[in-house]
Amino acid sequence: MVTPSSPSWQDVAARKSKEIYDAIPSAWLVDEHLLQGHNFMDLPKKCPSIMSEEELSITEQRAVDILACIHSRKWSSYQVTLAFCKRAALAHQATNCLAVVLFESALEKAKELDAYMEKYNKPIGPLHGLPMSVKEHIFLANTPATSGLISWADAPSPGDALICKVFREAGAVFHVKTTNPQTLMALETHSNLFGRTTNPFNVNLTSGGSSGGESALVAMRGSPLGIGTDIGGSIRGPSGFCGGWGLKASVARIPHSGLSGLHSGMENIIGCVGPMANSLADLRLFCKVALDAQPWDFEPSLIDLPWRDVRVEILPKKLRIGVLWHDGEVMPHPPITRALKDTVNKLRNAGHEVVSWNPRLHTPLLKWINTAYFLDGAEEYKNTLLQESDPAVPIIQWLLDSTTPTRHTVEQTWTLNALRDNLRTQFSLQWRETGIDALLCPVNASVASAHDESKYWGYTAVFNATDLPGVVFPVTTVQDMDVWDKDTKAAMGERDELYRKFWDEGGVEKYRDAPVNLQLVGRRLREENLLAVAEVVEGVIRGADVEKSRQQSQYERRDEMIQSRL
Amino acid sequence: MVTPSSPSWQDVAARKSKEIYDAIPSAWLVDEHLLQGHNFMDLPKKCPSIMSEEELSITEQRAVDILACIHSRKWSSYQVTLAFCKRAALAHQATNCLAVVLFESALEKAKELDAYMEKYNKPIGPLHGLPMSVKEHIFLANTPATSGLISWADAPSPGDALICKVFREAGAVFHVKTTNPQTLMALETHSNLFGRTTNPFNVNLTSGGSSGGESALVAMRGSPLGIGTDIGGSIRGPSGFCGGWGLKASVARIPHSGLSGLHSGMENIIGCVGPMANSLADLRLFCKVALDAQPWDFEPSLIDLPWRDVRVEILPKKLRIGVLWHDGEVMPHPPITRALKDTVNKLRNAGHEVVSWNPRLHTPLLKWINTAYFLDGAEEYKNTLLQESDPAVPIIQWLLDSTTPTRHTVEQTWTLNALRDNLRTQFSLQWRETGIDALLCPVNASVASAHDESKYWGYTAVFNATDLPGVVFPVTTVQDMDVWDKDTKAAMGERDELYRKFWDEGGVEKYRDAPVNLQLVGRRLREENLLAVAEVVEGVIRGADVEKSRQQSQYERRDEMIQSRL
Repeated sequence: MVTPSSPSWQDVAARKSKEIYDAIPSAWLVDEHLLQGHNFMDLPKKCPSIMSEEELSITEQRAVDILACIHSRKWSSYQVTLAFCKRAALAHQATNCLAVVLFESALEKAKELDAYMEKYNKPIGPLHGLPMSVKEHIFLANTPATSGLISWADAPSPGDALICKVFREAGAVFHVKTTNPQTLMALETHSNLFGRTTNPFNVNLTSGGSSGGESALVAMRGSPLGIGTDIGGSIRGPSGFCGGWGLKASVARIPHSGLSGLHSGMENIIGCVGPMANSLADLRLFCKVALDAQPWDFEPSLIDLPWRDVRVEILPKKLRIGVLWHDGEVMPHPPITRALKDTVNKLRNAGHEVVSWNPRLHTPLLKWINTAYFLDGAEEYKNTLLQESDPAVPIIQWLLDSTTPTRHTVEQTWTLNALRDNLRTQFSLQWRETGIDALLCPVNASVASAHDESKYWGYTAVFNATDLPGVVFPVTTVQDMDVWDKDTKAAMGERDELYRKFWDEGGVEKYRDAPVNLQLVGRRLREENLLAVAEVVEGVIRGADVEKSRQQSQYERRDEMIQSRL
Repeated sequence: MVTPSSPSWQDVAARKSKEIYDAIPSAWLVDEHLLQGHNFMDLPKKCPSIMSEEELSITEQRAVDILACIHSRKWSSYQVTLAFCKRAALAHQATNCLAVVLFESALEKAKELDAYMEKYNKPIGPLHGLPMSVKEHIFLANTPATSGLISWADAPSPGDALICKVFREAGAVFHVKTTNPQTLMALETHSNLFGRTTNPFNVNLTSGGSSGGESALVAMRGSPLGIGTDIGGSIRGPSGFCGGWGLKASVARIPHSGLSGLHSGMENIIGCVGPMANSLADLRLFCKVALDAQPWDFEPSLIDLPWRDVRVEILPKKLRIGVLWHDGEVMPHPPITRALKDTVNKLRNAGHEVVSWNPRLHTPLLKWINTAYFLDGAEEYKNTLLQESDPAVPIIQWLLDSTTPTRHTVEQTWTLNALRDNLRTQFSLQWRETGIDALLCPVNASVASAHDESKYWGYTAVFNATDLPGVVFPVTTVQDMDVWDKDTKAAMGERDELYRKFWDEGGVEKYRDAPVNLQLVGRRLREENLLAVAEVVEGVIRGADVEKSRQQSQYERRDEMIQSRL
């Protein structure tokens, strides 16, 4: 309720924005003319007075390589952290991706870690000195966790989420928290509290959601490794929209306790914490460090299953990959279909087998999960989003308008659970019959959507419904050649028509420079195998021959040996 | 609703009983005078006209040894199956433990398997020719699955439960299904449909429940290996009451799909399928065969975690064992405290360390699970138990009278889930701080209860609430020396007073010949470790020295090699 003394949401938002800018040194603020245009990926290079050549170079390395350089004392943590703070400040000015700025404490922490290294001549842990970014609804000691809600604008984290605690103890340096949308229930990042986060490749497009601050920041190399969450595509969607790497593991694999948000204790469908980065090696680093800490002792719902060393060289030389051309609901936009075709051709040329995946279970799975999100009839959303003090932003208003959730009794939720298990069993048996090593799919029907047009999440949410791990990775960008195939089927329904319209009303121009990512999906709890397959597929896409890919695997192993010496 | 044409429950029960007796060859029916007295453990030996010396000997072997003899063609499956059918028939006459008799089809199946062995000179699978018994609410093709309800008296199994399918394909021969109580929600086995199942050691005591047909049958060696289920103690309780071995694994470890029963899809608390047998080696056999079939492909909620080879010889030589003297709610009866003391002394004498476990979390965990059983306000129970056509038996009526369950909203169930996870985390941290390898506990406050006196399940249900694996094993029997310790605390509450009364009103005489079992509890998903610790503890109890125990482990390994040659 708004009492006369309550500040308006506009006041709260203005204060929040000021807090962020106040924490950015004025020397790192760029001239207005540099913030014109649509694509800001080159902004850091255009600011030589802010970022040195070396800082540009540092921030463009993979996390594993940065760690190797810190651990070999080529770079100090302070030097690395300073470079990422600068670049994060630039990313924020371009995309509005930051929710909390922690530059001061991060630089102080980096100094401490450098002193530790100086004194003991060894790193404090496997992430010694690495800057990391955290999606804002994840608890991090001494920061607020708002879930994008005005009413929680200053709600403090009660401490570190388990994942943050583990990484902090491993030596990570948290330099920022990143934006997420009002209520978290959107595939784009917009709230009254933080405003809109834009895509660094094209300001007219969204960076995705709900981990859309992370995806924009990581794409601009303002962070080497970010922590996101995903219950319907909230890691994979934004990573895909911004050309990054993102992994949603199986439920109960990666520490998940310590999130602000609605629906605490809801288990009919459960989300995942996971990594967002610019390389596959960094996804592995995240998982390995998280699981080496034996987090199940502290979060007993986690599965006591260490991270296993599954690499390219132990996969069969000839893989069998399923391909999902479309899900029977919404046809992917032309650049996505092109990316699928190119990838399939390259896989076949490299000697792998590719078979079409029948999407017959996708519609019931999507219907199931859309029901599961709102078992309380969306009451908690409606009650929290007080219309006066924090009116729904357009994408959330659309969500509330377009679904007619009903209140479920406990018995009805049990029936839904049984239906879910039945669908999962059918999906598993289809997988077994098809005999594939992984499933290649779109990440979304669209590349990065225009603002307020992220209205379909079937390509990711289906793998939350089935609890299968999915990794997304960059393949190409939107090109002038991208048009509908002549043989594209007639519209499959209302949502398909809407998405055709989204493409047709602007085509390539509308989506100029947008990255095109694809998704690989694996078997439950076999994240290690999935990443090994992804390594092969990436090698094939990049034109690396199989031998080179196997050789690359040796380098990864070397990096890990460096880690394991700690 | 009872319509004029519906038979009464008495009619239905009489028909059921007749079906069972009609399926037992009349030559296997014993003279009335043999069914006098209280202890029937020697009945088979008193029936030389029914069971030969060899048949007695066959039925007293462990399942692993029987399999070795079948696989080496010392015994035929037919010969083994016939012996167990006879002994099961005797067990039923003594204890009323059978719900469905499948002698005819079992003997036919055994012949087929013998022919297979003859033709191919190898077993069809790791359980080739082994008779097995199944708790009646578990689906088994061509049998009813009633959950002890008159209204479901003829409800057919839609096919095999996954565990039965896996074992059938491994070569098991199903010869009987065994009784369970009305609604399954009781720690003793009584229903209008099947009547009362009694304890073979003492007819005035219960065999326990809900897997009380299995426990009586396995104790009388009418089955070498049975399949039970446990959501509050329903494997461990009856195995404990009848001096057997029983394992409740962690949820999602052992195939669980395909049970009749109420509350399908309820996940706030989940039950487990598990083995009931007469040796530790047979529990391992059950788990290994179940998991070697990769059942997660067919039941995706299972954890993709193969059975691991953890044996005595890889444990630390000096174990650290926690001991739960009492749970702060109900003091264990004197023979149980004696068993705990003796075991602790023997463990210490053998060089192991024993530390007391603080039960501070047991009361809130028990309160939690007692709420979780009835989230719908027990409506499904009340609606299914139509008072006219199937009146509640006394122990179920007591349950309905003594709990005042309330209907929960979905939000309230989420709050309960969060509370459960909080309690589990505290328990896990207590375990970590205590640094124990396993926790030694009572199975129940009582040895086998008198009929209608099974009114406390805290010692088992707490480990459903925490989702920790528990194994029970025989230690001693009730002895004349069993009296309350002088230093036994004053009554801890109403339930404690009730249980003191149960003991005091009859003492040793009331519980004459009852077995005394104990329970060992391990860490979640580490069933293999738990069984290895149990092997050490059993060796210590039996007076085997550590070296002998390690040597025994070699024999187990040999048995397994025989299996793995298949």
